Amino acid sequence: MEVILAKQAGFCFGVKRATHLAFEAADRKGETYTLGPIIHSPQVVQRLEEMGVKVLGDVNEADAGTIIIRSHGVAAEELEAAVSKNLEIVDATCPFVKKAQEHVASLSQAGYDVVVVGDADHPEVQGIVSYATGKVYVVGCGDEAAKLPRMAKIGVVAQTTQSFENLKDVVNACLAKGGEIRVYHTICDATAVRQEEAKALAGKVDCMIVIGGFNSANTKRLAEVCSELLPRTHHIETASQLDPTWFSGVEKVGVTAGASTPKWLIDEVLDRIAEIDREKIG
Amino acid sequence: MEVILAKQAGFCFGVKRATHLAFEAADRKGETYTLGPIIHSPQVVQRLEEMGVKVLGDVNEADAGTIIIRSHGVAAEELEAAVSKNLEIVDATCPFVKKAQEHVASLSQAGYDVVVVGDADHPEVQGIVSYATGKVYVVGCGDEAAKLPRMAKIGVVAQTTQSFENLKDVVNACLAKGGEIRVYHTICDATAVRQEEAKALAGKVDCMIVIGGFNSANTKRLAEVCSELLPRTHHIETASQLDPTWFSGVEKVGVTAGASTPKWLIDEVLDRIAEIDREKIG
Repeated sequence: MEVILAKQAGFCFGVKRATHLAFEAADRKGETYTLGPIIHSPQVVQRLEEMGVKVLGDVNEADAGTIIIRSHGVAAEELEAAVSKNLEIVDATCPFVKKAQEHVASLSQAGYDVVVVGDADHPEVQGIVSYATGKVYVVGCGDEAAKLPRMAKIGVVAQTTQSFENLKDVVNACLAKGGEIRVYHTICDATAVRQEEAKALAGKVDCMIVIGGFNSANTKRLAEVCSELLPRTHHIETASQLDPTWFSGVEKVGVTAGASTPKWLIDEVLDRIAEIDREKIG
Repeated sequence: MEVILAKQAGFCFGVKRATHLAFEAADRKGETYTLGPIIHSPQVVQRLEEMGVKVLGDVNEADAGTIIIRSHGVAAEELEAAVSKNLEIVDATCPFVKKAQEHVASLSQAGYDVVVVGDADHPEVQGIVSYATGKVYVVGCGDEAAKLPRMAKIGVVAQTTQSFENLKDVVNACLAKGGEIRVYHTICDATAVRQEEAKALAGKVDCMIVIGGFNSANTKRLAEVCSELLPRTHHIETASQLDPTWFSGVEKVGVTAGASTPKWLIDEVLDRIAEIDREKIG
């Protein structure tokens, strides 16, 4: 079998930075926590737990030590609470997410009603929204934006993993709603580039393996776009989930991974596929 | 013949205001000038000339007296020259155009590269553009905007008579060009409302008469949209241009007029159509 690994598989810039900061903090002495899972990879979270880093659901569960702010960011109130408790803070918020939070804060202060383009249930969006001090709306698409009330000044910010097309649809709807629209293009193109490469790969292989957390939105979406082109697409978290029967009659396998998938998990999957291939021949 | 006059025929808010200010100034003593034609109606300009108001091509042609700034506005330098010459200024710039000029000035000052959506040859656009103190581009459509260079901060302002669809196309193209896009919705909907009403009227009459200056962009466009639906559409400036043969076999006539067409010209056309109708019967 020929195995083709996507160039864009695995950690994006923000996740790489967050993971590096977290392992660095774990190496130091004292109590260390992350506020929510550091990234959407249960395996990375587990490895940090083995090093003594606890995942907290609420900042009030910690009284001393170091708290690591996860890559998706947290709500403004949570960060303030950590500061007021004198916890040492390691801010691993993705710098692109941080920008989006700052834009929401400055837009609110300048009197804009804020529209955030994104998934209201995603922790990144919940964090971004919390920086608004005035009116703020979360819309998932242009049709939802079309239902917004009229506003004098509208500020638009996007969840960093949104599609550019979706941002355009929302901006178009907002143009009809207000006299002034100020848009910050906060989309990180890592997600789009990864998806485009995965689609190209799915078009030329017999089977696709997509590696990443089942709780990772970008990995789920990656598996979806591949499935649409190639039904023999499988989303797994670890090598142990590979089923040898998936590779029966397969000549070419494509492998890609979400933005929160570490290199070691990808390597384990590649090793296991090679093993399955040897078993097929033998 | 039944004659139907469009409700939206004739003067828009800005033209009505400019004309009122000009005739008021003409009634006062002393030398009075307009910088460029006050509005795009040769008949109104002629009537003002008969009252002693001269049209200047250049502010330096006046040394004393009152200078009236036309409805489309003038370049920032021209206004400054008038101020420095101690001329009395009657600013008849349409308040919507004034807003667009102010937005361009403030965007430039705030470090935005400015994109003006409009017709580069139109005096309104030339005036608006002159308020930029930094980089400024005029684009007629989205395809032209797609050719702009990348910019960090883009400010978008529209000529007041542009279509909303065109503004959307330009904004969509600009979203791919910069990190921040600030859009001022400076379009006045009088033009769109007039056109929609004219189209509805053209659909239910046998002949359309569109009255307005041959130098008026909005009147020309009004005649075009009617022509597309009803080839028997005629663009005239005055009643004397009506040709009785146009009405042969006609049962219903629609009449509309551009934003710079005064009521007296519309009334003369209606009177002349009634006369032609009587001649037909007689």
